[in-house]
Amino acid sequence: MSQSTEQDIAQDFLEQVRWTSDGLVPAIAQDTKTNDILMFAWMNKQSLALTVEEQRAVYWSRSRQKLWRKGEESGHVQLIKEIRIDCDEDVIILKVEQLGGIACHTGRHSCFYRRLENNVWQTVEKVIKDPSDIYSK
Amino acid sequence: MSQSTEQDIAQDFLEQVRWTSDGLVPAIAQDTKTNDILMFAWMNKQSLALTVEEQRAVYWSRSRQKLWRKGEESGHVQLIKEIRIDCDEDVIILKVEQLGGIACHTGRHSCFYRRLENNVWQTVEKVIKDPSDIYSK
Repeated sequence: MSQSTEQDIAQDFLEQVRWTSDGLVPAIAQDTKTNDILMFAWMNKQSLALTVEEQRAVYWSRSRQKLWRKGEESGHVQLIKEIRIDCDEDVIILKVEQLGGIACHTGRHSCFYRRLENNVWQTVEKVIKDPSDIYSK
Repeated sequence: MSQSTEQDIAQDFLEQVRWTSDGLVPAIAQDTKTNDILMFAWMNKQSLALTVEEQRAVYWSRSRQKLWRKGEESGHVQLIKEIRIDCDEDVIILKVEQLGGIACHTGRHSCFYRRLENNVWQTVEKVIKDPSDIYSK
């Protein structure tokens, strides 16, 4: 197989994704052991390519308009165990090993720590580590 | 408590959601027993209110621009067991009992039935029921 053909195959999976008009795709990070949903973020083509290449979650920060290697400040890197795509090819799941057990910037395991109870969003997950200890480096 | 105050409280959780400029919020449906991610869809304020009221998943179909009571054609209704929101208040999880065990229009348990293997999206989940048998009523 020629080098260019190999490269074409290597990039095909990126072309199959149905990117939004902004060039993004929603990504759900899921704990590979518990199946807990950890967080939700966005990826662009480069961030998905880098995620596959580096085997760690790399997102696209819409607020900062730059690549976001999850854990670059906190150390809470997400190691890739599996990547899935849905039937419409417009949503990605990253099954990850969450280093430190903390995905949320609030110091909790998951960003989804509030549950609707009697029409009120109630916090039901504890803070594992104080954010000021996570980001004070 | 006056009736209007009760109504205010009842609607507050809807106001707390950070809706997109289109008035939508992403919603992830997750199997309450296995924690498998079943599908991803969008909700508007009315669909979230109806989801809470009827205790079944009601989405907003962006392609059809109308409310979509999941299972209205297929019978694959999603009964609500828990609703969560993330730290940014802009993503919802519906933990559901998936009637029929099928969430995907392809007749599979989950819409996320393709896994990236050597840079190719490979189908790794079986069809439980032929779609022509699901939608031929």
